[in-house]
Amino acid sequence: MAEKKADKAEKVDKQEGFVEHITPRSVDFSQWYTDVVLKAELADYAPVRGCMVIRPYGYAIWENIQARLDRRIKETGHKNAYFPLFVPESLLRKEAQHVEGFAPEVAWVTHGGNEELAERLVVRPTSETIICSMYSKWIKSWRDLPVLINQWANVVRWEKTTRPFLRTAEFLWQEGHTAHRTLEEATEETLRMLNVYIDFVENDLAIPVVAGRKTESEKFAGAVDTYSLEAMMADGRALQAGTSHNLGQNFAKVFDITFLDEDNQLKYVWQTSWGVSTRLIGAIIMVHGDERGLALPPAVAPIQVIIVPIMTPGHKEEVLSKAREIRERFEHEYRIDMDAREEYSPGWKFNEWELRGVPIRLEVGPRDIKAGQVVLVRRDTGEKLTVKEEALPDTLRDVLNQVHQGLYNRARKFMDDNTHEVSSYQELKELMDTKRGFAIAPWCGDPACEASIKAETGATIRCIPLEQPREVTVEDKCIFCNGDAKTLVYLAKAY
Amino acid sequence: MAEKKADKAEKVDKQEGFVEHITPRSVDFSQWYTDVVLKAELADYAPVRGCMVIRPYGYAIWENIQARLDRRIKETGHKNAYFPLFVPESLLRKEAQHVEGFAPEVAWVTHGGNEELAERLVVRPTSETIICSMYSKWIKSWRDLPVLINQWANVVRWEKTTRPFLRTAEFLWQEGHTAHRTLEEATEETLRMLNVYIDFVENDLAIPVVAGRKTESEKFAGAVDTYSLEAMMADGRALQAGTSHNLGQNFAKVFDITFLDEDNQLKYVWQTSWGVSTRLIGAIIMVHGDERGLALPPAVAPIQVIIVPIMTPGHKEEVLSKAREIRERFEHEYRIDMDAREEYSPGWKFNEWELRGVPIRLEVGPRDIKAGQVVLVRRDTGEKLTVKEEALPDTLRDVLNQVHQGLYNRARKFMDDNTHEVSSYQELKELMDTKRGFAIAPWCGDPACEASIKAETGATIRCIPLEQPREVTVEDKCIFCNGDAKTLVYLAKAY
Repeated sequence: MAEKKADKAEKVDKQEGFVEHITPRSVDFSQWYTDVVLKAELADYAPVRGCMVIRPYGYAIWENIQARLDRRIKETGHKNAYFPLFVPESLLRKEAQHVEGFAPEVAWVTHGGNEELAERLVVRPTSETIICSMYSKWIKSWRDLPVLINQWANVVRWEKTTRPFLRTAEFLWQEGHTAHRTLEEATEETLRMLNVYIDFVENDLAIPVVAGRKTESEKFAGAVDTYSLEAMMADGRALQAGTSHNLGQNFAKVFDITFLDEDNQLKYVWQTSWGVSTRLIGAIIMVHGDERGLALPPAVAPIQVIIVPIMTPGHKEEVLSKAREIRERFEHEYRIDMDAREEYSPGWKFNEWELRGVPIRLEVGPRDIKAGQVVLVRRDTGEKLTVKEEALPDTLRDVLNQVHQGLYNRARKFMDDNTHEVSSYQELKELMDTKRGFAIAPWCGDPACEASIKAETGATIRCIPLEQPREVTVEDKCIFCNGDAKTLVYLAKAY
Repeated sequence: MAEKKADKAEKVDKQEGFVEHITPRSVDFSQWYTDVVLKAELADYAPVRGCMVIRPYGYAIWENIQARLDRRIKETGHKNAYFPLFVPESLLRKEAQHVEGFAPEVAWVTHGGNEELAERLVVRPTSETIICSMYSKWIKSWRDLPVLINQWANVVRWEKTTRPFLRTAEFLWQEGHTAHRTLEEATEETLRMLNVYIDFVENDLAIPVVAGRKTESEKFAGAVDTYSLEAMMADGRALQAGTSHNLGQNFAKVFDITFLDEDNQLKYVWQTSWGVSTRLIGAIIMVHGDERGLALPPAVAPIQVIIVPIMTPGHKEEVLSKAREIRERFEHEYRIDMDAREEYSPGWKFNEWELRGVPIRLEVGPRDIKAGQVVLVRRDTGEKLTVKEEALPDTLRDVLNQVHQGLYNRARKFMDDNTHEVSSYQELKELMDTKRGFAIAPWCGDPACEASIKAETGATIRCIPLEQPREVTVEDKCIFCNGDAKTLVYLAKAY
């Protein structure tokens, strides 16, 4: 094992310097992203095509996302449940648009044990069909409505090109599936959940979004209307951060989901579905990250405060004891940890925890102890504060809020600065060639114009914003065909 | 749609009386189990062979199990992560015993989209192989050890005969996978997690267990030692409620998981894995349930206290207002709900919430309000108490504790009463013919005796208990072959 030993020894040596190895974001955004994902130990490539392993540090972000979003989902009256991973082919094929949208990208189970299955199964790409088949059985009377169910689950889509968190063969998500008595209630639910997502993404993830309706060609396969949240990544491209679908009665009719209404009439239910996924972690990386690596919003950071004891010779015990004291003082209120490893220098640790995006670093050294203070460093701005020990409770609370607000404001400013109303197709093409930002443009509503824009510029209509930036007038002409414009839309290249 | 309407109307009518339809447990235990699962709305059959849907009420039990067990898993130093659903066939085949154990019962993915895969994938039946392939990459130095990772996930085993919660093609579980520097540490970890499970199952689920080591023929495919918790169901059969495996270096050698130790030697790690699953819900049903349905241990009951307002004519508002007041008073401390539905009678609701196993029912009627009291009914004993409103905080806390202890004591007594040390093979056979309980018997350690016992009586050696019921003497002869006994074992028919 001599050769292998040398190999391992080299790997151990390499650990020392790994913070140095992030590709500059300004040089190669895509490689920077991959470097951050791997070196902050958020995820790793798995030995299965297109799949990732979510490592403990990355999964802890997902657990915080789950906890904070799950609370909101339950506060709005929903309950969690669990439906099977497998969907029989015949069920998937029931809704024509739905199967057309998903069949090309599903994984097929054909054998169980040593036997070929009589009917192939798909590994769920989404669960409308299997859930509708159950709703058809469960829903009988108007008294059973609304049905408000959510599921946290893994789903599989056999994508050709994949990137950790952004597009992987398997990913984790939540999918809400509701059934209502009237169209009005379903519409209200669709928008309610859209607003829950906006609240969560803006107030917990510090990511500003544009919310709007998808065009016919971009909407979910089988939906009447799809609404989405669009966020701007630091390279100017859009990322769809969540969707909420008004399914109308499309699935109800195909899956025969009827109820006896109070007026003794048998009616089809009205449905919605909505979801966010581990993609949100990709958005956090690409919105808040910088040349030093990750920068995490405090609400979902696995570690909110990292203490680095400065263990100068002769002061080790004193410094460790103070660091432990501070950790114990705040560990019930914050996710706080300390890095007491002796094999790494303080400077190495500073880099390491900046790479990992921890919002606040506290440095505790012998001189600080003597002066009854600690040094606090903000991850978002790099700002250093000297804080008296007695002021720590207020300061930690305030600075965590400031980091959240600082991240949000920076992202908001970047989005605003890179959103341009364009007045000619030429201008749109130029903007998209630079790959930077969102374009706002008038559109006639014709899918043919939309398709041409996409083919020629690479940009898609991200949404028809719920809050139109301004009123559309008769002066407004479609950015592509010059016909009368019906609405203003957001366009961008997207992940 | 006239015919369908009549069908729906009939179904609506049938709701009224559904509490009546549970098969008596004493008549047909198996049918009673199925009735409880379906009628308490814990789970339902899915339109996929061998799969179940976990309905909101059942899933809420699982969420409580997750929360309480996850806390213990984290307190013992573990972190959660997520590994891929799919395992390439070549990875599964690396460990010979492991593949032999699992290959006959896996689901195979052969196609992605419209293309046949170059290599077949199995849907994970357990994750040792995929996780070991990553550990081989991540672990370099003794400083990286121990690696203490847990995963909450779905797994698939293509079982021939299935029953909700007990044996389904897909189920939910957690699986811990750890790597250590020494055998001693791995052994300690294996037993630590066994003890975590015992603590959780006894103190949160109120289920007494026997803990012990599995025989060679019953241990996990690829393990050096498997430890398990065995619980006795109300029909006397055993259910394995959790397992903890000492994997030794079996997987480390096959997957080449080495580390450079402090002495500069390259060594293989020592590993463990351990898990519990949604089977625990089956155990809760079969240990605590009775003729009236479910009886849930308070720690994991989705609703701990149900308020039934007795809305007699002329008093509706007054009663509802008091019920709401009580709910609001306690909703931050307990999972408390009220059933204000007007279409059902109080008596129907009493049956309904007993069927659903809610530990405490509070009845609030006009006369109670006048007297400043409520009526409290315990689910486990049916005991009725009249409680002054001011005494409610103490009483709720005390009675919830008493329900837990009552359930545990009843189950403990049942297990003790139905555990018999047998002194002859004839006695063992007779005991197993009655299908009731555990047998304690001396065993020589020969797998051939074990196999013969299983073939002839249907009973398996559940475990070699960690705490031997008594010392084994030279007088003790193997229950099957009459050779010298090495140990006392527990035998039972099992789920």
